[in-house]
Amino acid sequence: MRDVQINLGNRSYSIFIGQGVLDAAGTLLTGLPTGRKALLVTNPTVARLYADRVTAALTRAGIDVVRALIPDGEQYKALQSAEMLYDRAFAAGLDRGCPVVALGGGVVGDLAGFVAATYMRGVPFVQIPTTLLAQVDSSVGGKVAVNHPRGKNIIGAFYQPVLVLSDTGTLRTLGAGEVRSGLAEVIKYGIIKDAAFFTWLENNLDHVLALEPAALAHVIEQSCLSKARVVEEDETEQGQRAILNLGHTVGHAIEALAGYGRYSHGEAVAIGTAVAARLAVDLGLLQENEEHRIRNLLARAGLPLEVPGDISTDAVMAAMYGDKKTRAGQITFILPAAIGRAVIRPGMAEEPIARAIDNCRAGSD
Amino acid sequence: MRDVQINLGNRSYSIFIGQGVLDAAGTLLTGLPTGRKALLVTNPTVARLYADRVTAALTRAGIDVVRALIPDGEQYKALQSAEMLYDRAFAAGLDRGCPVVALGGGVVGDLAGFVAATYMRGVPFVQIPTTLLAQVDSSVGGKVAVNHPRGKNIIGAFYQPVLVLSDTGTLRTLGAGEVRSGLAEVIKYGIIKDAAFFTWLENNLDHVLALEPAALAHVIEQSCLSKARVVEEDETEQGQRAILNLGHTVGHAIEALAGYGRYSHGEAVAIGTAVAARLAVDLGLLQENEEHRIRNLLARAGLPLEVPGDISTDAVMAAMYGDKKTRAGQITFILPAAIGRAVIRPGMAEEPIARAIDNCRAGSD
Repeated sequence: MRDVQINLGNRSYSIFIGQGVLDAAGTLLTGLPTGRKALLVTNPTVARLYADRVTAALTRAGIDVVRALIPDGEQYKALQSAEMLYDRAFAAGLDRGCPVVALGGGVVGDLAGFVAATYMRGVPFVQIPTTLLAQVDSSVGGKVAVNHPRGKNIIGAFYQPVLVLSDTGTLRTLGAGEVRSGLAEVIKYGIIKDAAFFTWLENNLDHVLALEPAALAHVIEQSCLSKARVVEEDETEQGQRAILNLGHTVGHAIEALAGYGRYSHGEAVAIGTAVAARLAVDLGLLQENEEHRIRNLLARAGLPLEVPGDISTDAVMAAMYGDKKTRAGQITFILPAAIGRAVIRPGMAEEPIARAIDNCRAGSD
Repeated sequence: MRDVQINLGNRSYSIFIGQGVLDAAGTLLTGLPTGRKALLVTNPTVARLYADRVTAALTRAGIDVVRALIPDGEQYKALQSAEMLYDRAFAAGLDRGCPVVALGGGVVGDLAGFVAATYMRGVPFVQIPTTLLAQVDSSVGGKVAVNHPRGKNIIGAFYQPVLVLSDTGTLRTLGAGEVRSGLAEVIKYGIIKDAAFFTWLENNLDHVLALEPAALAHVIEQSCLSKARVVEEDETEQGQRAILNLGHTVGHAIEALAGYGRYSHGEAVAIGTAVAARLAVDLGLLQENEEHRIRNLLARAGLPLEVPGDISTDAVMAAMYGDKKTRAGQITFILPAAIGRAVIRPGMAEEPIARAIDNCRAGSD
């Protein structure tokens, strides 16, 4: 079992990584000052596989478990689901000391985290992420949210968990598509922060794709460490933390325009990363051979690199100007300056962005 | 113009107190790193009196104002109102840098603060409280919330404003009932933290009740300073901050049982404070002559001291056990140990509490 420590003053916490770590949920939780009841938030698919094991682990530690199921799907990451969870928590008599435990992927984690952040002005939040994306991304950084009918993650907070358990065993049951989606974020950490990890991925991607536990644990640990180093310096995204958004400005636009579900988050981010790399080369920031290494690694992970033909460049540009990361109508773009280093470019002009999008279509070049 | 500084690290802010200070809203806000659009949340009554002045002040400073009216009444401090405000903010193109400005009393402040805390994971929050209660209580401490159908303030956060403007002029237009309600909290600060201020109130209450600007400014300044000293040491109510709840455990129960609206928050807190003082005397913590001073000052402020005859002690006890301040089913009680000092008593037995409630009824003693 590996242990990554996230240092955020009195909001510090540990991430435990390893095969079977979810069975230690009760033992690890009783070491923290929490109440004797927990709200376990999960979805039907994950519940069938793991809810009984987590419940047993908590019950053994003397914690009563109240289970709440949220149907699969991004559309349930909504204020209406949060209301249902407030009702459940209140009806079950959960007080300010009782933890909300998220067992599942990003939808469950973001929603349960938002409820933990706001129920009685904040109760302890425990994350048991079961997808690679959730293990390498949402387990560090404290971003919790629900969607608004007009945009993703419009209603949310920065709220840190008290404990995260990343069980590599869960990745073996949830399919290759889920792993691929997570790899877009994993590769991102190499690009923005850690050239050695990027090279490790180039050399070991086959072991990761084969879901070898040691390779997965290394990927999760290194990703969490990279993200932690960024978040520790800028918890509420006032400045440098924005580098984590590499690939996300264009990615979010494509995800929304394609209709949620057509591209996974990771697939959309991969396309966005390809656009950012192209733009960085166009601006003379990134060497062309490094762009090739980025594109090659994303492609080997089974991720798409092309803006789809049915989504116009104009539509992508318009969608980006509605993105919450813009400030006073300006677009801030994250660009790779080298493998291992990203820069933040506020106030980017539209024209070079549009050209980079055009150059990331099938048949361009 | 007086200026109280609240020291909370990178969440520090200033409270400006004085006659006409709301006309400086634009000037003071442009000194902060905020966007050029603001969502002004207010209610119809306050809007008629002050919204045009605040709007003019912001417009002069180059800030576009989007106005959102919330009807008067506790029932509008709800998730549905927050949704309406998210929609307004999003439709008007407010981004992460654009402030939400609350102009009004507690309902407007708590609701607008919750929206500021959660819209795009937090935008700058400006408070222009127009009631004494809001000026002395919610302007320090960062508690924001909406109600749940089954309890007050069940959905909320700790979220600090970037700026507070307390205009004593607004108190002259909003009536004696509002001032009375605020005085319960003002007297509370004297009881829990500041014996000299309590004595000042005994000597100067008539000037305060006559709404003399200098007396009001002193009351607001001293109250904010007292609360700030408590909050600075315990921002998220993990321990000592609980002393601010003197009178609130019983007060909330009575407020809920009587039906919201029959007692103002301050009136309910005054009754709760009388019960807490009685219990403290019964337990040998407080001298009887200090209880008399507390009761006298509350009565001179026009506040009630008696648990109403139609609300049974059993009902109050049952309502308190549903209060969110309880932990693992135990009641924590705040008790005055002297004028100027309060203690936190976790795990209080039920019987002495019930007796103190019985002893605070018309005709007892």
